[in-house]
Amino acid sequence: MPHIPDSVRVALVQMTCEVEKQPNVDKALARIADAARQGAQIVCLQELFHNQYPCQSEDHARFAEAEPIPGPTSQAMAAAARQHGVVVIASLFERRAPGLYHNTAVVYDADGSTAGIYRKMHIPDDPLYYEKFYFTPGDLGFKSFATRFGQVGVCVCWDQWYPEAARLTALTGAEFIFYPTAIGWHPSEKDEYGAAQHSAWETMMRSHAIANGLFVCAPNRVGVEGNIEFWGGSFVSDPSGVLLAKAGHSEEEILLADCERGKLDVVRTHWPFLRDRRVDAYGDISKRFID
Amino acid sequence: MPHIPDSVRVALVQMTCEVEKQPNVDKALARIADAARQGAQIVCLQELFHNQYPCQSEDHARFAEAEPIPGPTSQAMAAAARQHGVVVIASLFERRAPGLYHNTAVVYDADGSTAGIYRKMHIPDDPLYYEKFYFTPGDLGFKSFATRFGQVGVCVCWDQWYPEAARLTALTGAEFIFYPTAIGWHPSEKDEYGAAQHSAWETMMRSHAIANGLFVCAPNRVGVEGNIEFWGGSFVSDPSGVLLAKAGHSEEEILLADCERGKLDVVRTHWPFLRDRRVDAYGDISKRFID
Repeated sequence: MPHIPDSVRVALVQMTCEVEKQPNVDKALARIADAARQGAQIVCLQELFHNQYPCQSEDHARFAEAEPIPGPTSQAMAAAARQHGVVVIASLFERRAPGLYHNTAVVYDADGSTAGIYRKMHIPDDPLYYEKFYFTPGDLGFKSFATRFGQVGVCVCWDQWYPEAARLTALTGAEFIFYPTAIGWHPSEKDEYGAAQHSAWETMMRSHAIANGLFVCAPNRVGVEGNIEFWGGSFVSDPSGVLLAKAGHSEEEILLADCERGKLDVVRTHWPFLRDRRVDAYGDISKRFID
Repeated sequence: MPHIPDSVRVALVQMTCEVEKQPNVDKALARIADAARQGAQIVCLQELFHNQYPCQSEDHARFAEAEPIPGPTSQAMAAAARQHGVVVIASLFERRAPGLYHNTAVVYDADGSTAGIYRKMHIPDDPLYYEKFYFTPGDLGFKSFATRFGQVGVCVCWDQWYPEAARLTALTGAEFIFYPTAIGWHPSEKDEYGAAQHSAWETMMRSHAIANGLFVCAPNRVGVEGNIEFWGGSFVSDPSGVLLAKAGHSEEEILLADCERGKLDVVRTHWPFLRDRRVDAYGDISKRFID
């Protein structure tokens, strides 16, 4: 095993998507190459980067965008990881069996091998985000994976609102949690609620970094598709909740941040939250409500 | 049972403390009266408001500041609640038995009766915050209590870094979580880390409001005591994480905010996080680590 570097350069790819798949895949491959040229060691793509966001309506035709894993798109990502010697985190619309589809993220190690896969556990369903129509909730639980550049946890979008997801991922030893995301503003809501919505989104994930003492990295889609203006704002938070890098709301970016892995132990011994958890008293977390 | 009003005015008392107990208790009583005159219906005092923060060193003499519950200070708080017809949340150094002390909060209903008590579950221990020397961890779990002005949850200070505490309190039906607090800057750290520390503190509690769709209200101590500059910054967050009111860092204040209880259902049906919790997959939250 090569020594894991003390400082790891992360790249988050924030991009627009076209209707056709191939140009998006080609763009993602170009961005991975560009990020690697800039010294990135872990590259994370946004949620379902290979197509426009498919869930603005309940449309059976959109299932055609899914692929098995391995499949053409995932294999292209694995090849890019191997070619550039970087870890690649790719969020994919997975066709697991006829009538059984998931919102899945694959972590490819720097040699192109599969470090692990994660199937989105929390599935939203709201106007313009009809994900329950498409995605079966994940059945693999919350995990992290050993890679050449550190222990990588991955959750997906709606998971970011659940402290349980971040905590469980952290308890598996994750040094980073990546959140491939596709979130944006409704045109009718942006003026009144847009700033608060974006702030809540960033606040939740910064809180996961703080509560768990690890790096949180969230690449988000950008651009207008149908009735959603994806708000970009991709960011990397350090284990104290300080943003190391943050992208704008409207442009494509490759966001780079250098993550000092040693910060985990420093932060966790200065803010020793993990030390004091009352694991004897948390059992009711598994209840829906305590009536 | 009187009808619970749709809009509830909350008051958070941010104050300095003297060495002697009685002036602090007298000041708190005056603040409760003042808040009630301003229309407050729930008044929450800061952590251990009756004395200077006792835990900057391990000093057996400080146990003398504790009282049984009921005791003189708690009875004065109950009387104030009854006199003014307001709910009072009072954080107290509880002497439960010889050698058995807790950091306890009591919720007094507007008729002066005890709605419930909570004993701080997560106990810190860091330089200048030697709480493990004084306080036995709570044995009552996470709770909320019915009052004339709504369902009141209470956690205390260090609990605020634990998403589990907020979640469990929310699942009992809390509409508000109050966090009586005593946190501040070390003089040697403030310049370099002060802004990030304060931001992390506020971010964590805003995240509890967002994740759980309820009001979070945090009164904090202010003023310099020994080697700690208590940073004030008391605030009330609405269920979207928007701050309704926020105090300054150095002055005493009675912070008022009107909380629309109907917001809970509006926010929770628009951001339906509680709907989608994966209660089948959270069992390992009760583990220390997942090796």
